[in-house]
This record gives sequence, C-alpha cells and structure tokens, in this order.
Amino acid sequence: MRVLLITALLLIGIGAHSQNCKNLTGGWQNELGSILQIDSINNKGEILGVYQSSTGVDGKTFDLQGYLNYSADHPDQKNLSFSVRWKGYGSITSWTGYCYQLEDRDQIKTVWHLVRSGKEFDWERVITNSSTFKPLHPSR
Amino acid sequence: MRVLLITALLLIGIGAHSQNCKNLTGGWQNELGSILQIDSINNKGEILGVYQSSTGVDGKTFDLQGYLNYSADHPDQKNLSFSVRWKGYGSITSWTGYCYQLEDRDQIKTVWHLVRSGKEFDWERVITNSSTFKPLHPSR
Amino acid sequence: MRVLLITALLLIGIGAHSQNCKNLTGGWQNELGSILQIDSINNKGEILGVYQSSTGVDGKTFDLQGYLNYSADHPDQKNLSFSVRWKGYGSITSWTGYCYQLEDRDQIKTVWHLVRSGKEFDWERVITNSSTFKPLHPSR
Amino acid sequence: MRVLLITALLLIGIGAHSQNCKNLTGGWQNELGSILQIDSINNKGEILGVYQSSTGVDGKTFDLQGYLNYSADHPDQKNLSFSVRWKGYGSITSWTGYCYQLEDRDQIKTVWHLVRSGKEFDWERVITNSSTFKPLHPSR
Repeated sequence: MRVLLITALLLIGIGAHSQNCKNLTGGWQNELGSILQIDSINNKGEILGVYQSSTGVDGKTFDLQGYLNYSADHPDQKNLSFSVRWKGYGSITSWTGYCYQLEDRDQIKTVWHLVRSGKEFDWERVITNSSTFKPLHPSR
Repeated sequence: MRVLLITALLLIGIGAHSQNCKNLTGGWQNELGSILQIDSINNKGEILGVYQSSTGVDGKTFDLQGYLNYSADHPDQKNLSFSVRWKGYGSITSWTGYCYQLEDRDQIKTVWHLVRSGKEFDWERVITNSSTFKPLHPSR
Repeated sequence: MRVLLITALLLIGIGAHSQNCKNLTGGWQNELGSILQIDSINNKGEILGVYQSSTGVDGKTFDLQGYLNYSADHPDQKNLSFSVRWKGYGSITSWTGYCYQLEDRDQIKTVWHLVRSGKEFDWERVITNSSTFKPLHPSR
Repeated sequence: MRVLLITALLLIGIGAHSQNCKNLTGGWQNELGSILQIDSINNKGEILGVYQSSTGVDGKTFDLQGYLNYSADHPDQKNLSFSVRWKGYGSITSWTGYCYQLEDRDQIKTVWHLVRSGKEFDWERVITNSSTFKPLHPSR
C-alpha cells in the first residue's frame, strides 16, 4: 500500500512543475495548509496567481498580485511580495519575503501584515506573523 | 504678509484635488517627504499609482500596485496595501494599513516590510517600520 | 480653573526633568496619550518604569522592564526596548525602537508587537503597529 | 555508533527537564540552532534566562529578561516575550509570541524586532522576522 502511494506521488512528481527559487511559478504550501499558486511572472516582475487559505474564509480562492525582484549583484537572492484582497471580508494580507534554501529544500519565507475593520480601536487593526511556503509537489 | 500666504494657500486648495478617506486618489506625503500618488482604484479594488521616495533611491519615481478593501458592515473603515518594486535595487516594500482620522485630519497609517538582498544572513533581509501619509494639498 | 491648571502644569514643568535622547529617564507621551515613564536605567542597560495606556485597560498603570543599548561607534544612536505585562488581561506588548531627532525634537520611535489569547486562530494572536513618544514636559 | 549516540540522547532525556507549554523552563532551540534557555519564571510572570545565538555574535551567551502572561479564561494559551541586549554590539532583539501545539509538538512561535545603529537612515534600523523554538531535549 505504501509502495503504491509512493509510486503515485512519484508519477505526480514527474508531471508536476518543479517549483524552486529559480522558477517560482507553481504551487507552494505553508505550515497551515494554505496554497500559494503563482501563475505567471512577467518581465516587469509582476506576479499573478491565486491563494487558497486553509482557515477563516471557507476554503474559497482569491486572486493575488505581487512583485519579484533581485539585484544584479545577487541574482540568486530572490525577493518577493504578494497581496490578497479578501473580497467580502473587508481585509487585506500582504506577504513579504524571499526564496532561499533551508535543509536542502527551496522555500519561500515570508512575514505578513493583515489589516481588517470592525475593531474597537484602530491600533488593533493590523495583525502580523510569518509563513513559510514549500513546493506543493516537490521533485524529491 | 500672512494674509497673502493664506490667500495663496486657499487658491491652491480650490484647484487641488481633496484627498481623503472617502476618495483616496491623489497625492499623499509621509513624515520623511516621500510621496504616494494614487492614480486610480478600479471596481475590483486594484490600486495603481506611483511612489517617489525622499531617501535612498536618488529621487526616482516607481510604479506601485495595491488593493483597497472594506467590509459592508464598516464602509467607513478603509483598508489598503500597496507595494513598490525598487527596480535596479533588487528590493521590494509593502505597506499595509488604513485610512482614518486623527486630530480631524484624514491620514493613511501604514506599517511596512522591505526585503532586500546582499546581507550576511538571510534573517537580516527584512526591515520594518511605519509611515503616516497626509494629503499633499489639503483643502484646509 | 483653567488658569490654575495651567499654572500647576507650569510649576511641574519647572521642576521636571527634561527628557531627551541623552537622558531618557522621565515621562514620554505617544500620539494616543499613553504615558511611558522611565524611572531608572542601570549600568547594565536595564530599564525600569511604568506605563499608563490611554485605551483598553481602564486607565490603570503597569510595570515595565526593558533595555537600553548603543554601540561605541555610534554613542548618539540610542536603541531601546521595553515590555508591559497586562496583568489581568493575559496579553503582553513589546516595543522596540530608537531615540532620534525629527524636526528638532527628541522622540522615541517604536514598533510594537502585542500578543493575546482567546482568538479563533493562533495566527491571529499577534498585532503590530508603531508609536512615537515625545517628552511629556519638554523644556521648550 | 548510531546506537551509542541514541543511547546517550535517551540518557540525557531521562535526566532533562521536559519543557512544554505548561512548564516553559528549560532549553528551546530555533531553526537556526540558537538556544533560548529559560531559567526561571516568578509569580509576577518575570522570565529570566540566557540566549545563545548561532549566528552573528561569535557564539557568546547573553542574559535575557521577559514576561509570561495568560488570561483566566484561557489558561492554556501562554503568551510570552523576552529581550536580549547584545552587549558590545549596540543592538537589542525583542521576541513576542506564544506557546502552542503544532503536529503534536509543543513549540514557541515568535515574531521579533531587532534594532541596531550605524545605518545610513534611521528607518533602516529595525529588522523583523520570526523564530520557532522547540524543546531542546524533548521527552519523545
């Protein structure tokens, strides 16, 4: 049974796009199971994609837009940001971070800000934390 | 002399667009003199504009993209985020915040993350702080 | 009545310590009216004091502890952090920042994290924003 | 050889304190190998301990002070903060977060601010990111 499962995963792996820090397009998943899908990055560094949160928004999918950037001196150090407008909820999340290797695995490490309405005080409106995204169908 | 100055300011005020939390399009300036110019916000909440930083990038102007959002329950509480890709520098800044009134003045209060390359450690790559933007040509 | 109050404030002002970036002990007030009172800083850089929040905790006063630090190369650039344990509320706030001059006034610019309980998701537990503290009884 | 190593670890484990979200005293290690050692937490919620960073400060050990707090309504949701004054470096780091379970393991999830001197602009002085600490000698 385990052999079958591993075989199936390998087959998926062969057909799947192999996301990494050189080519960010594809699916990435964070600790909580949310999925960052990067559909395209154009030559102006504009990122388009969709985001599926695992909590708080009923499993719906939302558009995202963002930027990729890196300097000529450090072409391997990819920086990126992306934002989601939680339509119907009034809030917005902006992730900011970089793609790097930890323990031989490419991953996107981000910190994020989420701003929302309906709080007693304005100073309560922004929450923060971090998320690390790993390739959804890694090649290894 | 003071009367002349006030008259001049009033005349400028009449012609100027009056940016506020109901209509965010127009120019906003932060504590350091940087200018956030919001050119358009479409019906999907997508913000387009340009950003002119007062420090660190030789006075150049950069495109920005972002989102505006608010909930049906709190239509007066406008949330927004916007990002700038510092082309040629390798870095990206993402501002996240809200428009609100403090001391009778509409202002955009943001916290931001800036990610860059070329640091000794990856954990040094993100800096953070806050910026408050006030209308560039206030009507009063 | 108002005259008496102003007279009293002036008298307090005369006796008051003039807080600045060279000598941080004394009272500092932020945009929302909360008061940071730094009582002492010992030779290990340990800060002790009290904090009175203007919102959310019924005007009560809370102990604070923190650190002051600066490098030999930049003795004028004072860094500090301080934390408040909101006894009875379950939460904690940590401010981190520096003392600097803006528009000829010494001020403490901080960003803060506040962690609390009782949220639907753990990722909602940390809020963030900034506060700038100015001398409570400035010498001018 | 591997057997010997595992035996040694088990023996250490037997004698070691089993850190968890109910009893935070003991050693915790983050992704980068830095060690948070919580020596004591008194009945005012004051934390004392030492911190050994894996990068940037030559492996030296530094004192830390912090707070633990939780509300009567949610006694299982432990909030904490702690700070380190990097003596000789001029900087300070403040971690803020909570202890919780992820994948059946107790861990301390934090976001942090680090403030330092010697930058071209004051707005560059605060860096941010996250760290997750896991028990150094887990009982399982």
